[in-house]
Amino acid sequence: MNLRSSHKCFGGNLKFYSHVSEVCKGPMNFAIFLPSKAEKEDCPVLFYLSGLTCTDENFVMKAGAQRVAEQLGLIVVAPDTSPRDRGIPGEKDGGRPGEGAGYYVDATQEPWSRAYHMYSYVAEELPALIDAKFPTKKNLRSIMGHSMGGMGAMVVGLRNPDRFRSISALAPICSPSNSPTAQIAFRALLGDDKSTWADYDPVEFLKRGAYDREILIDQGTSDDLIDSLRPQDLPIKIRMQQGYDHSYYFVSTFMEDHVRFHSAHLQGRPLS
Amino acid sequence: MNLRSSHKCFGGNLKFYSHVSEVCKGPMNFAIFLPSKAEKEDCPVLFYLSGLTCTDENFVMKAGAQRVAEQLGLIVVAPDTSPRDRGIPGEKDGGRPGEGAGYYVDATQEPWSRAYHMYSYVAEELPALIDAKFPTKKNLRSIMGHSMGGMGAMVVGLRNPDRFRSISALAPICSPSNSPTAQIAFRALLGDDKSTWADYDPVEFLKRGAYDREILIDQGTSDDLIDSLRPQDLPIKIRMQQGYDHSYYFVSTFMEDHVRFHSAHLQGRPLS
Repeated sequence: MNLRSSHKCFGGNLKFYSHVSEVCKGPMNFAIFLPSKAEKEDCPVLFYLSGLTCTDENFVMKAGAQRVAEQLGLIVVAPDTSPRDRGIPGEKDGGRPGEGAGYYVDATQEPWSRAYHMYSYVAEELPALIDAKFPTKKNLRSIMGHSMGGMGAMVVGLRNPDRFRSISALAPICSPSNSPTAQIAFRALLGDDKSTWADYDPVEFLKRGAYDREILIDQGTSDDLIDSLRPQDLPIKIRMQQGYDHSYYFVSTFMEDHVRFHSAHLQGRPLS
Repeated sequence: MNLRSSHKCFGGNLKFYSHVSEVCKGPMNFAIFLPSKAEKEDCPVLFYLSGLTCTDENFVMKAGAQRVAEQLGLIVVAPDTSPRDRGIPGEKDGGRPGEGAGYYVDATQEPWSRAYHMYSYVAEELPALIDAKFPTKKNLRSIMGHSMGGMGAMVVGLRNPDRFRSISALAPICSPSNSPTAQIAFRALLGDDKSTWADYDPVEFLKRGAYDREILIDQGTSDDLIDSLRPQDLPIKIRMQQGYDHSYYFVSTFMEDHVRFHSAHLQGRPLS
């Protein structure tokens, strides 16, 4: 691991690392906030997955989570949203998929399958790395995200209930199989056979009714992207927040609620 | 005034405006946070001046002040750090002075004197505009800032004690007359006669001992710019914050203290 920079923040330490990922076939970036409590004892971990165009910096710079994480003694990890500089044609063109647009799936289609394995990275490789290198309570973690990352957090959490204790999302892509914009990316990453998409579709998972824990979801009513996000497809209750849009001004407003929700679920012993 | 965008945030509303400034000879941008309380009654105003390279967006995106301003019922105004697009040679070259580097002075030297009158803009024109257009408690305001903007906040507040009730700063340029980097900008903006610089030098003002109110200043001990900021020149006590750097991770950590400091000073009647 390579420490790129470190900043004292709210009494804890915010650190930016890069490391070589096996599943993503090259260097990956992440930010980690270590509360002051982590200097003395192991702490649970809250993962945050960002949305389209974001890096590992947007969340820790804008969302205000560190203040609450320091109060509650939570480690917070925010990975980048995709591999970068993999020499894949079109990777840097601002398209979807591409850099900043990994959609938290394991791509099966050329050329993305060469490196875009964000599902395995976020669900397995990164949590294992964090548990190995930092003072965590092992296998005691939760996950949240925004927009594309809200979808990713739901998918990763729903598919791994033994490894993520709680799930929350802010303005997530709920039904990518039915979202005009997500469909374009899913076709490129996963191919035309929509049966393979269900593994990465929160609504499809939730419809099976196999997940019995509460999921906290906030969605602004003035979100310009609501037609692509399709919160109305969710079979669970969510909080509609009057007048809020899709920006980090919305995310930061409800961040404390989300961090406290996860902290409450991270009390006690690991799930396994 | 032209409303560029609006975002609901912590129950209040964050709005980005542009307007034509008389003293700065063209369009200027500012952000304003209106707490929900301002829908029902007039509120005091807290001005925030940003540092080098910033726009009107950095502070409201990164510092986390809106959360506390909503709690306390404060309007917060964050202007841009300079005029832009004035057709001044070198304005866009990233130099100092230039766009993002107005230093909150009234330039007397060509070509900057054509538009770079940030002192008058921040001390007079913008407060008058805000009082005219928004539900403020008239002439009840305070000022804070970071780095170059911390210098600006001190200068504006110290020179106008009847118009700004309290002053605070985070890692301000304290002694521009003795700062190697600020000297270059001051020479271009104000000329070689250093006696004219004293009007914009917080240390020079404070040495006169004419200001008897408390000023809240935080300075990180791990700030790479500390040699240019020269906090050791200040004749007043400041808070040295162990291990903090110059970034918004430092600013956001102490923002709540600063907003509460000003709120306490903004209780009661206007100064004049």
